[in-house]
Amino acid sequence: MTSAAYEELARHWSRLHRFNHLHSIASWDRAAMMPARGNEARAEALAEMDALLHRLRTEPRLGGLIARAEQEPLGDVEGANLREIRRSWLRSNALPTRLVEEQSLATSRCEHAWRTQRKTGDWAGFLVNLRPVFRLAREEAKHLADATGLAPYDALMDQHEPGMTGAEVQRLFGDLQSWLPALVRSVRERQASEVVMAPRGPFPKAAQRALSLEAMALLGFDFEAGRLDESAHPFSGGVPEDTRLTTRYREDDFMQSLMGTIHETGHARYEQNLPRGLLGQPVARARSMAIHESQSLAFEMQLGRDPAVVALLAPLIATHLGPQPAFDVPNLQRVATRVEPGLIRVDADELSYPAHVILRFGIERRLIDGEIEAEDIPALWDEGMASLLDLDTRGNFADGCMQDVHWSEGLIGYFPCYTLGAMYAAQWFAAIRRSTPDLDARIAGGDLAPVFDWLRDHIWLQGSRWTTAELAQRASGEALNPIHFRRHLESRYLGQATV
Amino acid sequence: MTSAAYEELARHWSRLHRFNHLHSIASWDRAAMMPARGNEARAEALAEMDALLHRLRTEPRLGGLIARAEQEPLGDVEGANLREIRRSWLRSNALPTRLVEEQSLATSRCEHAWRTQRKTGDWAGFLVNLRPVFRLAREEAKHLADATGLAPYDALMDQHEPGMTGAEVQRLFGDLQSWLPALVRSVRERQASEVVMAPRGPFPKAAQRALSLEAMALLGFDFEAGRLDESAHPFSGGVPEDTRLTTRYREDDFMQSLMGTIHETGHARYEQNLPRGLLGQPVARARSMAIHESQSLAFEMQLGRDPAVVALLAPLIATHLGPQPAFDVPNLQRVATRVEPGLIRVDADELSYPAHVILRFGIERRLIDGEIEAEDIPALWDEGMASLLDLDTRGNFADGCMQDVHWSEGLIGYFPCYTLGAMYAAQWFAAIRRSTPDLDARIAGGDLAPVFDWLRDHIWLQGSRWTTAELAQRASGEALNPIHFRRHLESRYLGQATV
Repeated sequence: MTSAAYEELARHWSRLHRFNHLHSIASWDRAAMMPARGNEARAEALAEMDALLHRLRTEPRLGGLIARAEQEPLGDVEGANLREIRRSWLRSNALPTRLVEEQSLATSRCEHAWRTQRKTGDWAGFLVNLRPVFRLAREEAKHLADATGLAPYDALMDQHEPGMTGAEVQRLFGDLQSWLPALVRSVRERQASEVVMAPRGPFPKAAQRALSLEAMALLGFDFEAGRLDESAHPFSGGVPEDTRLTTRYREDDFMQSLMGTIHETGHARYEQNLPRGLLGQPVARARSMAIHESQSLAFEMQLGRDPAVVALLAPLIATHLGPQPAFDVPNLQRVATRVEPGLIRVDADELSYPAHVILRFGIERRLIDGEIEAEDIPALWDEGMASLLDLDTRGNFADGCMQDVHWSEGLIGYFPCYTLGAMYAAQWFAAIRRSTPDLDARIAGGDLAPVFDWLRDHIWLQGSRWTTAELAQRASGEALNPIHFRRHLESRYLGQATV
Repeated sequence: MTSAAYEELARHWSRLHRFNHLHSIASWDRAAMMPARGNEARAEALAEMDALLHRLRTEPRLGGLIARAEQEPLGDVEGANLREIRRSWLRSNALPTRLVEEQSLATSRCEHAWRTQRKTGDWAGFLVNLRPVFRLAREEAKHLADATGLAPYDALMDQHEPGMTGAEVQRLFGDLQSWLPALVRSVRERQASEVVMAPRGPFPKAAQRALSLEAMALLGFDFEAGRLDESAHPFSGGVPEDTRLTTRYREDDFMQSLMGTIHETGHARYEQNLPRGLLGQPVARARSMAIHESQSLAFEMQLGRDPAVVALLAPLIATHLGPQPAFDVPNLQRVATRVEPGLIRVDADELSYPAHVILRFGIERRLIDGEIEAEDIPALWDEGMASLLDLDTRGNFADGCMQDVHWSEGLIGYFPCYTLGAMYAAQWFAAIRRSTPDLDARIAGGDLAPVFDWLRDHIWLQGSRWTTAELAQRASGEALNPIHFRRHLESRYLGQATV
């Protein structure tokens, strides 16, 4: 027996990878380089490529090839690749072309208008465009549910976090809610008497960029296979062979660009270290978005706010921004771990971030299940922010339910990945500490290799070789367990863990 | 009667335009942004796109559609578009896929090796790769000749300069050779007694970049539809909707980046001002490479070295690079018009440049005609440089016949376009001076609008609406006539024209 059908599929996905490459670079360029008047032609070019990719992913012969390949004698890696090929094929074919096109129109209209509507908090105007986006998302969820046998919300989440379900997220977040609010209160009481010096700007953009580049180098970013640039909304893009990070600079606040860059560097190192020999095949892709966020948060939260790492960053900060008392290590450490619940998710500290995610998850899940409608969002938002973070958001749409781009883009089922990622990151570091008991001393000495070696071997080089559950089990000996996140937060913010 | 076949063709070429957009941006990125390790994946992605474009350009149905469209009632612009569609289709279908692939392999091997072989002047090594490139170019020329009815060299040149023939180039260059050598001698005698102060560097890269941006603004570049970046070999790329210029900076010589940027700005303004409503259709493309070079040389030579423009540039230069005696206008003017024949084409002054082109044209034409072989090049080069510029190049391959990238890339029939462009540029300026008799005073007052308005109306907005011969006739009242180039050079370099 040969594996002719499998080989044919592998060639097909290599072609997709190459076309995706051009799409990714042109998309990065649009965000980081393109002047304003180039937008229309770029949008048309990318839409043409989207249409080509959709045609290639839904070629009628693929179903038969997959069925034949499943009868062929394949090695383990090839078998895993075929599993991922089937996943990708199933999702692409589940949606009627008409729906894909309608979604594309509705989300680009909604997202485009949102950019200005957010500034004025024009909820009524936003709602007009948001309603069809959610209506189409429900349709999408139904089609995906039919194809996969999953519940509708789960079918949407499965695109970002295969194997995860709304019920499981509910269970994990329920655990969090049983201890996190009390922890936030304790930490805030403890921090109330702390004296924190705020770093005093302005911090010139060029100096912040030089600092960011040094931080990336410290964290092992391969500058021969990627770049750092600037964009309105920071992201990690490009291709695994050439990752493109962006950050943004505020002259009054260098921590935003520094921590943002460190976050994106985590995403980037994952991409840069995916199994290179298999690149182009689905099995070589990053496992899931929660695992991806576990890498960015491993860098930004686990490492970036760790006292020993802050001590490594402090001299770089002083070199590039000029010395000042606020850059003393203990003060910088207090700045990096200050807990102050606020309205904006992306500015949230490590302890209050999960509340923002829990709020959004609850709303979007009920929206997809048809329990609520888009017009119910503001009231639920106000209620959630009051109960979760004791904040009043009434009437403040801009910093309330209009702050994120996700829903306007039809991106539903993604929010949970941020907090799942934070939990996974804590679980990875617990495993790293078990395998390297003197980790703190190693890091204090400037040696981050134990962290990177572990992540490379257990996460990065695994690509999509295993299901997410198998990956967690193999890497850390257990399924996702929120106790590690709790221990991490308690020991960092209270000085010792209670569990 | 409808024009259904024509409409179908127009849609097809719009699609090609959109895919070309992604190819262009990814190619620009490769030269200007991409880190080294991204190259392999990029090359694969671009090759995949090349293959797609080739398939789309050679779809079997196109021949029938073109024949049907030629029977449809079309407007003038549509008719011109159909003529260009046929041209493009004929060329794409003339070459067997096997030949295209062999050429792609042979030229990328030759070009890649050339990058290092040039440094060491390894002619013997270069020759091994160059032979197959020329062998395949002869095959290409034969196929194109069969398809077009042109002579082989003319068929190659027709790809860059439709309608031009080797015999006509020979006639035009013959005219040049009848007066240019004597002119060079007179000018050199005249300049022998001139005192020229060399500008003293170093000139920091950031300051040169700021100066380049100001020069581009002075010359009307639309920064909302393009960018300036850096690359090893300066070029004008991107798409008409978003042109991407590159330049390179030498800290000891700001004139190179300044004049290089001005040159590319000429290319860019042509692209930025092609007929926007028709973009995507062949009729909206730049007419030919000689016409393109006539725009870059109109900017670099006609404008950039004009005393009134030098007087506009001088204060910008002093602002960005700091004042120094060499930046006085009369001295800058002498620097910009200094005639010193040298070995390198791209560094050549306005007067000796044509000699470099005449040399290459003579060699490549005989090579395609089978009169000589690649191994004969060095001897012919030495002979030509001695007779044309009185320079000894024996044994100096790096600065001799290995200096250009063109032949290693299989780009044959292109060199003449540089000097044809210089002639056209002089012809355009003669016409501009006729329509604006006080041009010098207008420019001295900082008003370049008469130049740009004329070029926009007569060249840029015409796209490929006319054949090159028609374009020249309509714009300037006559076919290409070298007398304008002679008058321009004599009046600039001798103070008055003799013809």
